Amino acid sequence: MASDSVTPAAPDWRARCKAKKQQQQEAIPRAWLIETPPDDVLNVLDVPYKCGLLTPREIEITDTTDVGALLSKLASGQWSSVEVTTAFYKRAIIAQQLTNCLTEIFVERALQRAQEVDDHLKVTGKVMGPLHGLPISLKDQFKIKGLETTMGYASWIGKYADSDSVLTQILYECGAVPFVRTNVCQTLNWGETFNHVFGRTTNPWNRYLTCGGSSGGEGALVAMKGSPLGIGTDIGGSVRIPSAFCGLYTLRPSYERLPYAGAVNSQEGQESISSVPGPMTNAVSGVKLFMKAVLDSKPWNKDPLAVRKEWSDKEYALSEHGGGGQLSFAIMWDNGLLKPHPPLWRAMRMCKAALEDAGHKVIDWQPYQMLEIFRNAESIYAADGGHDFHVVCEESGEPVIQTMSPDTNKHDLALDEPLVQTVLGPEKKMLTAWELWQLHKEKRSLRKAQLDHWQATANQTGTGRPVDAIISPAAPYVAPPHGLNNDYFYTTFCNAMDYATSVVPVTFVDEELDRPVPPHEFYNHHDEANYKLYDPKLFHGAPVGLQLIGRTLEEEAVIAMTEILDNALGKYRAAARE
Amino acid sequence: MASDSVTPAAPDWRARCKAKKQQQQEAIPRAWLIETPPDDVLNVLDVPYKCGLLTPREIEITDTTDVGALLSKLASGQWSSVEVTTAFYKRAIIAQQLTNCLTEIFVERALQRAQEVDDHLKVTGKVMGPLHGLPISLKDQFKIKGLETTMGYASWIGKYADSDSVLTQILYECGAVPFVRTNVCQTLNWGETFNHVFGRTTNPWNRYLTCGGSSGGEGALVAMKGSPLGIGTDIGGSVRIPSAFCGLYTLRPSYERLPYAGAVNSQEGQESISSVPGPMTNAVSGVKLFMKAVLDSKPWNKDPLAVRKEWSDKEYALSEHGGGGQLSFAIMWDNGLLKPHPPLWRAMRMCKAALEDAGHKVIDWQPYQMLEIFRNAESIYAADGGHDFHVVCEESGEPVIQTMSPDTNKHDLALDEPLVQTVLGPEKKMLTAWELWQLHKEKRSLRKAQLDHWQATANQTGTGRPVDAIISPAAPYVAPPHGLNNDYFYTTFCNAMDYATSVVPVTFVDEELDRPVPPHEFYNHHDEANYKLYDPKLFHGAPVGLQLIGRTLEEEAVIAMTEILDNALGKYRAAARE
Repeated sequence: MASDSVTPAAPDWRARCKAKKQQQQEAIPRAWLIETPPDDVLNVLDVPYKCGLLTPREIEITDTTDVGALLSKLASGQWSSVEVTTAFYKRAIIAQQLTNCLTEIFVERALQRAQEVDDHLKVTGKVMGPLHGLPISLKDQFKIKGLETTMGYASWIGKYADSDSVLTQILYECGAVPFVRTNVCQTLNWGETFNHVFGRTTNPWNRYLTCGGSSGGEGALVAMKGSPLGIGTDIGGSVRIPSAFCGLYTLRPSYERLPYAGAVNSQEGQESISSVPGPMTNAVSGVKLFMKAVLDSKPWNKDPLAVRKEWSDKEYALSEHGGGGQLSFAIMWDNGLLKPHPPLWRAMRMCKAALEDAGHKVIDWQPYQMLEIFRNAESIYAADGGHDFHVVCEESGEPVIQTMSPDTNKHDLALDEPLVQTVLGPEKKMLTAWELWQLHKEKRSLRKAQLDHWQATANQTGTGRPVDAIISPAAPYVAPPHGLNNDYFYTTFCNAMDYATSVVPVTFVDEELDRPVPPHEFYNHHDEANYKLYDPKLFHGAPVGLQLIGRTLEEEAVIAMTEILDNALGKYRAAARE
Repeated sequence: MASDSVTPAAPDWRARCKAKKQQQQEAIPRAWLIETPPDDVLNVLDVPYKCGLLTPREIEITDTTDVGALLSKLASGQWSSVEVTTAFYKRAIIAQQLTNCLTEIFVERALQRAQEVDDHLKVTGKVMGPLHGLPISLKDQFKIKGLETTMGYASWIGKYADSDSVLTQILYECGAVPFVRTNVCQTLNWGETFNHVFGRTTNPWNRYLTCGGSSGGEGALVAMKGSPLGIGTDIGGSVRIPSAFCGLYTLRPSYERLPYAGAVNSQEGQESISSVPGPMTNAVSGVKLFMKAVLDSKPWNKDPLAVRKEWSDKEYALSEHGGGGQLSFAIMWDNGLLKPHPPLWRAMRMCKAALEDAGHKVIDWQPYQMLEIFRNAESIYAADGGHDFHVVCEESGEPVIQTMSPDTNKHDLALDEPLVQTVLGPEKKMLTAWELWQLHKEKRSLRKAQLDHWQATANQTGTGRPVDAIISPAAPYVAPPHGLNNDYFYTTFCNAMDYATSVVPVTFVDEELDRPVPPHEFYNHHDEANYKLYDPKLFHGAPVGLQLIGRTLEEEAVIAMTEILDNALGKYRAAARE
C-alpha cells in the first residue's frame, strides 16, 4: 500500500514539508523577527513585554483579555481594527517564534480586511456586526478562501480553498477579522500538537511541557495573548485539553450547536461522536460573545446539520436551574480509572470552598459506568481501523505518526502502553456498518443510564433539582512533558455523553502546596504509571484548569455557571490573599 | 446460518404466531364481536354506524375528530375518560374486525387507567395533564410495561416489557390513556402492513388497497375513527404514507425532536437516517396538541438524544416566515424520478388555487440532485446488507418477507423490479464503517447543496424570503393494491434531508375528474410501470393526501403552515360546492 499511491509528479513529502515551512517563515514581516531566548528558557510569557517589538499601546491592546472591552473600544472607534489587528498580529508572530503555534500567516490580507471594517464604521457610523473589527485566530481546519488548509498533512499542502467554511463566512458577516491559522497534530487524534509540516508547538508557560492538542496552536497562541479569541475543535478534548494546559477558558458545545460545514476534518463522516467547534480565550466573556454572535446569525440557514436553536437569554438566566440563586455542583474528584495528581485535587477543593462561600451546594459526584463508556467511545473512534489517516498519508508517502514523544527515551516516566491510541499505529481491521450500529445501541443505553444517574441526584442536592453541573479535571495531570499526554478520558467522557462543557483556569501548580501523596490502590497499570509521573518540581507553575460539565445542548446555562464559578473563585482567591 | 440459532425449546414459528393470534382474538370482549361484511365489501367506513355495537353517544364521542374538543369535554368532566375510552375501544375493535389493524388488545387495563384519570379529576378538581383522559393508540414499537412488544416478529412473541418506553411514560404523565397497539410490517421496511404474526392490515376506504406502512395499523385504525390520535414512526415515510393513503393528518418531526428511547426498532443503532415518532390523526389540532404536550414535558430529561428545544409559540407564530401574513409555497409537481398519477396533480392544483385565493404566493419547485439523494439514502438503509432483519428472523426460523404481495400473480401491474427494496431479500454484503462514513460525507454535502438550493429561491418568491414550504406528493400514487407500494422516495427525500414534514388530506380520487393522461417520456422503467398502474376505476374514492415540507427542526412552523393550507383548502372546497 505504502508509497505506490503517490503520483510520480508529487515531490518527496519531506521536501514538500520543508518548502511549506520555508514559505511560512517568509510570510513573517522581517521587522517582526525578534531575538528569541534560548530553548532552555522555559516560561516565555514575558517575552512580548521585553522584546521591544510591541509599543506600549500595542501591549495595552493585546493585554485586554476581556473580549467585550475590546469590542466596545472597536465599536466606538477608540481603537481601529487595523491597529488592534496589527497589535495582535505582532504578538502572534512573537508567539510563533517562541512556541511554533501558527500555520497560515497572511498579514497583508488580514490588515486589508481590518481596513474594510474600519471603513465601514467610518462610512456608515455603524458596526459591521457583533464581532466588529475583532481579530480571531482559527485552527487549521476552518477554510479561508484562497488559502491552503493543510491540517498538518504533507499531502494537503497546496490545497487552496475555493470557499470559506461556514463558520469563517459567519465570522466575516459578524465583522470579525480572521487573521491567522494555528497548528494541530497530524490526524487531530492526539492531545498534543506535532505534525511533519509545521513541527511541534510548545507550552508558553513551560516549553518543556506540551500545550495539549489537537487545538494546541490556539492554546499556545491565546496564552501568549497573540489572539483575543481562537476557534478550535473538539472530538475528545481538543479544545479543553489545551485550554486546561495553557490556562484558558473554553467551551465544548454539543454536537452540531455550531456550524462545522465546509471545514476540513479527520475521519470526516464519522457521526457517532461528532467533532464540534469551540472558542478559546483568556476571559469567559469571549466565550459568551462568540456563542451569541454565531447563534444569532442563524447558522442553520448555512449548515444543514446546525441545530435550529437560537441563543436563549432565558436559559442563560438559568431558567432550568432555579434562576441561579442557589446552585448545586458535584465534584468528580476521580473518575475511577486514573486518579488525578495533587494539584487537580487542590483546584477542586478551591472550587468547593469558593462555591460554598458563594452560597451554593457542593456534593461528590459518583462516577458510573466509566469503563463501559470509555470502551464504547474508543471503539467508535477506531471503527475504521485508522483507514482514514492511512489514506491521507499514503497520498504523499508521509508516515502516520505513532507517538508524540520527541525522543522516546527522553522521559523515563513514559506510560508503558498507551491507553487510548487504538486508531494510530499500523492500520487495523475495520468494523462493519452493523458492528458500528451495535456500538451506537450500546452508546444510547449508556447515555440513558448516565442521564438517569444524573437525574437521581435530585434527592441529594437539597435544591430540589438534580445537580446543576459537574466539576471535574480535564486530564488527570496538568500539562505533561511532550509525548506523555496519553489519557483523554476525563474529556472524552463529555464527548461520548454530548455534555456541553467548559474549562475554567483555577490555579497554578505550587511545589510547596502540591506535595506528592502516598500511593493509593492502583486501578490499573496506567493509573500506576500516572501516579509515578507526578513530580512537583517538574510541574511547578503550570496552569491548573478544570471542566464544568453541563447537559446536552445547554450551552447558555454552562456559560452562566462558568461565570458563577469564575466569580466565586475570584473572590476566594482575593480573600486568600488578604 | 438459518435455523441453527433457534433454541431447541422454541416451538415452530408458525405455531408461535398462531398461538399469539389466538390470544389476541381472545382478548376481544365477546360482546364486541360484530357481524362483518364479506371481503368483497371494499369500503367499510360506514360499518361502525350500522353494526349496532356503538350507542349514539359513543358515535358522537368517536366522531369528534378534533382532539382539542375531546380534551375540553374530558377536562370539564362532561365526558369521562372511561366512557371515551370505552367508545374508542369498541370502535377500534370494529376496525380490527374489518381491517386487522391491531396487535395488543388490553381492554381491562386501559379502562382501569381511564378510571384512575377520572378519579384524579374527581378528587383534585384538576386534570392530570395536557392529554387528560385521552385514549391514544401506539404503533407496536412503543413498549408498555407488562405487555409484549412483538413488532411483527415471531421471535419477539413472549417478550414482556419490564418498563415503558419514554414516550409511553410521558403520555401517562400527560394524563393520556394508551389503549391499544397497532400493526406494522415485518422489519418496518415496507410501505405496507403485513407480518407473519398478525397478518395483513387493509385500507378501510377500500380493502383491496393497502393502508400503507409501516405504521399502517394506525392508518387504518385512525381512519376508522377507532382512535383519536395514534403514534407511529417514520424512517422513510412510515407515518406519511399510511396517512396519505388513509386520509389522515400527520407530522414527521426532525431527528430526535421527540423521544424514541425505550422503543423497540429495526436496525437499532442506525443513526445516519434516524427513525422518528409522529402523530396521526383526523384533524390537525391533534398534531399540535400532541407535539406541544410532549415537548412541554421536557423529554430531554428522560431521553438523552432528545433535542433540548422547547415548544416555541414564536416559531408557531411563523416568526421566521414573516409572521405568516403572506407566505410562499413551491409545488413539487414531479420529482423527476416517478411522475405522480393524475389525482395527485389535481390535488396540487387545488392547493395552488386555494393558497393563492388566500393571498399566498405559489411557485414551482425545481427538484435538485434527487437521484443522488435517493442513492445515498438507499445505500445507508442497506448498509448492513439486511443483517439486522436476518438475525431477528433466524431466532425463530421465520423467513424474511420478500414481498408484500398477497399473490404475486394477482396484480398484472406489478412493478417489474422493486426500486427500493435493496435491504430485503437474501442477506447482502455489509459496508464497512469507513464506507458508511463516506456515505455520511456525501449526505452532508447533498444536504448542504439542497439547503443552498432552497435558500436561493429567495429571489423568486416575491416575499423577500426563500420558499416557506414545499408541497409535494407523499407517493406518486394514492393507496395502490396490496403488494404494489414500491416507491418511497417522495417521502424518503424528507428523511434524508431531515425536513419536518406534514401530510394533509386534500381530496379523493374521482374517476371522472382524474382521467388518465397520455404517456410522457418516461424517466426510467419504474416510471413507465408506475404510469401503467394508473386506473381511475380502481382508485376511485381513495383519499389523496399531500406533504407540506418545511426545514429541519421547524416543527412548529410546519404545523402552523399546515393549518393555513388546511383552512385555505376548506374555504376552496366550500366555494367549489356553492
